[in-house]
Order: sequence, then C-alpha cells, then structure tokens
Amino acid sequence: MSLLVIGSVAFDAIETPFGKTDKIIGGAATYISLASSYFTDNINLCAVVGGDFPKENIKLLQEHGVDTEGLQVKEDEKTFFWSGKYHNDMNSRDTLVTELNVLGDFDPIIPEAYQNCEYLMLGNLSPQVQKTVIERLEKRPKLIALDTMNFWMDIAMDDLKEVLGMIDVLIINDEEARQLSKEYSLVKAAQKIMEMGPKYLVIKKGEHGALLFNEKQVYFCPALPLEEVFDPTGAGDTFAGGFIGYLAATDGLSFENFKRAVIYGSAMASFCVEKFGTEKLVGLEIPAIEKRVQEFIDLSQVELTLKS
Amino acid sequence: MSLLVIGSVAFDAIETPFGKTDKIIGGAATYISLASSYFTDNINLCAVVGGDFPKENIKLLQEHGVDTEGLQVKEDEKTFFWSGKYHNDMNSRDTLVTELNVLGDFDPIIPEAYQNCEYLMLGNLSPQVQKTVIERLEKRPKLIALDTMNFWMDIAMDDLKEVLGMIDVLIINDEEARQLSKEYSLVKAAQKIMEMGPKYLVIKKGEHGALLFNEKQVYFCPALPLEEVFDPTGAGDTFAGGFIGYLAATDGLSFENFKRAVIYGSAMASFCVEKFGTEKLVGLEIPAIEKRVQEFIDLSQVELTLKS
Repeated sequence: MSLLVIGSVAFDAIETPFGKTDKIIGGAATYISLASSYFTDNINLCAVVGGDFPKENIKLLQEHGVDTEGLQVKEDEKTFFWSGKYHNDMNSRDTLVTELNVLGDFDPIIPEAYQNCEYLMLGNLSPQVQKTVIERLEKRPKLIALDTMNFWMDIAMDDLKEVLGMIDVLIINDEEARQLSKEYSLVKAAQKIMEMGPKYLVIKKGEHGALLFNEKQVYFCPALPLEEVFDPTGAGDTFAGGFIGYLAATDGLSFENFKRAVIYGSAMASFCVEKFGTEKLVGLEIPAIEKRVQEFIDLSQVELTLKS
Repeated sequence: MSLLVIGSVAFDAIETPFGKTDKIIGGAATYISLASSYFTDNINLCAVVGGDFPKENIKLLQEHGVDTEGLQVKEDEKTFFWSGKYHNDMNSRDTLVTELNVLGDFDPIIPEAYQNCEYLMLGNLSPQVQKTVIERLEKRPKLIALDTMNFWMDIAMDDLKEVLGMIDVLIINDEEARQLSKEYSLVKAAQKIMEMGPKYLVIKKGEHGALLFNEKQVYFCPALPLEEVFDPTGAGDTFAGGFIGYLAATDGLSFENFKRAVIYGSAMASFCVEKFGTEKLVGLEIPAIEKRVQEFIDLSQVELTLKS
C-alpha cells in the first residue's frame, strides 16, 4: 500500500556523552522514511529543505525507495536546523539551537501522484500544517497516524486538538501523554486522549518500552535492554516509521497487527540508537531486522502452565 | 518447601497524594510473609519487634500461615518505625522519620524448627545481619535470595559485597543496580553484579516492569498499566514475597520457572499498590491472583507469524 510521509527534513548537530557531530542529516520525515523503507517501497515524501541541503542526502532517500517529488527545495533559503545535547542518563536533553528557516512557512504541496495514498504518517510538525495535509488529500487515507510533541501542546493546543479529531492513530511519549491529558496514570491518560479522536494510541516510554491502546485492549511491548544507547535522536520518529511501514506493507488493521507493528517499530528504534543520527538506518539488512524482532518476542515470552 | 523469611517487622506512617495513615503495620518481612503466604503455608519468620507491637498484628501473620516462633518480642523496647511522604509522581519519596529502635541491635535467632529450610529470603536489612543468618543455618538452603537498598551501599558496601558472594538471587531496583555496579546500562550493570556472586538478578523498575537475568538469558516482565497507584510502600517487598513464595511452592529452579516467579511477584506487587500499606495483601483470593497473572501474560502476548 502507498505511504505518504510528512515531516521535517533537517540538519541536526548532536552531542551525547559519547561524542558530538557536525551538521548531519536529520528530521522526523527522514527517520520515518528510512525506517519504513525496510517494509514498503511505495513511500512518498512531502517536506521542504533549503538550497544548502546536499543533493547526495536526497539521493540517499531515493536509494531507499523514497519518492522525493514532494520534497520542495527552496534554493535561496536554509534548511531547518536543530542542535541538542543529551544529559548523562540519555533520557533528557537540552535544545541548544532551533533555526526554523524553511520550516517557518512550510506550505505542504501534495503532488498529484501522491493523491490516493492509503497510509498517511504525519510526522512531528505544526498541527496547522498536519491539518492542511489531510485537507489537501482528495480522498481520506485508510489510516492516518500522527506524531507530535510537548512544544505544540504549549503553543498550539487548540490546533492540535482539532487535528486529533481527524486521525486514527496518535504516537506520543509518556510525558506528552500526561501533558495532553492532564492525567498522570497512563491508563487514564489513554482513555482521555482516545476521547479526543484517535482510535489507537501508542505511548512510547523509551528504554521502558511502549504501550498500545485501543478502546478495549492494551498491549505492552518491552524495550530490548541494550548495552549502550549511543544517541537517542530520531528514535521516536524511527519507531513511527517502522510502525507505519509495517502496517502499510501488511495492510492489516486488527489489534493483533497493530501489536506486531509496535514490535517492528521498537526494533527499528533499537537499531537507531546504536549509532549517531540516521547512520544505523542506512543499509540495514532484512535478516538483521527479523532477528531483532525475534529478540523482542523472546524477551517477554513465557509459558505459564508448565512447571520445570 | 519450607521458606525462611528474615527482615523488618515495623510500623510505617505513610503520606501519598491520596491521603495519609497513622502508624500501620509494615516492614519488609511483613510484606514478604503476607505475599508468599498465598503460595505456600510453610513460612517461618525471623524478625524483632518491641512491646508496643499489637498482638493482633502477630495474629494476622499467623492467620496467613506464618510461623512466628522466630519473631522476637522485646517488651521494654520500641518497634522499628519509618515514616515517608511520596511525591506527586509516586516514583520518589522523602523519608521523614527513621527510628531503628529494636532493629538497631537485631540479633537474628534461628529457632531449631527453622533449621533445614530450603528457601531463604533475606529481606532488606543490614548486610551484616543477613550474613549472620546464613552463617547460623546448619545446612545451606537450596536457594538464597536477598533484597537490599542504596542505604546499605552507602554505608556498608564491603559487608554487602561479602554477602552477595553467598547468595543465589539478588532482587534490587534499577537505581540500586546502577549504584552497585557503577554502570548506567542495566545490561552492563547486570553482568557486573552477577560477577559479584548472584547467579540470578532481578531488577525491579516499578511502573516499568522487571528484568530477570542469568548469565546467558534475559526476561522482561511488563508492569500492568494501573489506573491508580495508591501507595507504593512495600511493593518491592511484596514482589520479593510473591517471587520466593512461588519458587518455594513449585520448587523449580529453571529459568522458565524463575520467569513465572517474576510474573507472580509482579502480580502481587500490583495488588499491593492499590491500597495503603498491607491492606490489599490481607484476604486476597487465589482466583483473583490467577486472573491478575493472566492479565500480565496477555499484556505482552503476541503472535508474530499470522497476519490479519
């Protein structure tokens, strides 16, 4: 099934306890596209970069089967730039620089060839832009998933709530779920958030795994205990990419298939954090992904009835 | 199989965002004994209280099948007292009062009838006392499990390391694992800790579940997402009680059986936090426990191969 990905394509500069990078390729849509490319080759990207964005990075996306007709290049402007520094525990970070640049007035243009997409992944962006994308699609996709962050809850909650009423799946982290719902308990938070629109909710808990909710069911996907988390940047976007890519590839919308999508998303995210930026998402092998997914399954598998 | 439980029997005064208690029954050995009593009726308690400890609380333990011959009552002294206040997120707390009282010079006397116990649970206490208990047993138990806390790492690390060399299973939380190993990654922490002696390590992560390690395997038990955590006091001890109680009852020392023990421990802990103190651990019904265990299993169960 065809997948339309919207989000930022950006430069990141990252500092972790293990080292720091110069400007490297980043952005939600980059991670989502790369991660989903291991599941489907029908990926259409809608985003914007400046003239400073290297052509070889666009080529890299194309080599992963990503159609970039919808990637606007504004030759006289600069690409969105984010710089951050992670604390020692890797669970929190300080944003050092945010330069919106081309993203400041991003007008998402949907090429004709992208119409009739069946799966839509709205990566973290202004809710206003996310809403515009939905409105510009002539036919509502089969499934619309959305990622967002606390920043938009702070400055554009009304817009966010409006777009939440238009989507099927919301993917956020535990802090964001608490902020959005004003509930500390994630069970209560989930109930409140699903009343806002989404039929499915994924709450990412970083090194503690992920929860999947629908109205009646809940699934807990563990996180693989890793020896080292090298750089968490993009892990959430990579999760979203693996998740939506798996759904688009399998085209199954049962809760069971959503559970598998959460595992695939988690597996992709576990690769992402092993190196800086998108490094590990380039040139991954399918057997390595399958092996990693099996590790996730084995991690929580238990046979209750036997005694030995 | 017979289970010997050592630890504090105490008074607690607890304040959470949901309310506060006067002095109520608490202490590691209390929670461990009550939780394990749902699995085995061969529980021997070694602890100490003062003359101020109500006889009906001792009777309560006896009604749960706990033998209290090893519970010393020092009529002229006072029972160990702890008071704490939980922060809004329930994940951290301030200790308001710690009065060691009878626990200050606790000399664990093992009644003759307690010798030859097969399972030994050393609840959180001074490592020196934990070591003394092991030394006073004429025959080494089949399995020795130990719980401890950061306090002992701060003031008695050498003693703690000595007793770690004498046990089979260590049960601690994630912060304690990091402090003990000086490693942030729990995988690395587990490796270092197992080099100190224990063949099995359980790392409790509170609302994020629990990890079980041996030299070659790892198991992740999810935590049930609860609508409300009312009072976390004793949850770790209750986990230990369910864990060791299940092992003593089933008498199986395979990794598979340890996994099940972790689930039973987690299920008992999930009951514990639903009310103040030990309230929920009194008069639980076995079918309710089995139902809760099944919820834990279902939470992470996934069928990878089918598409629907």
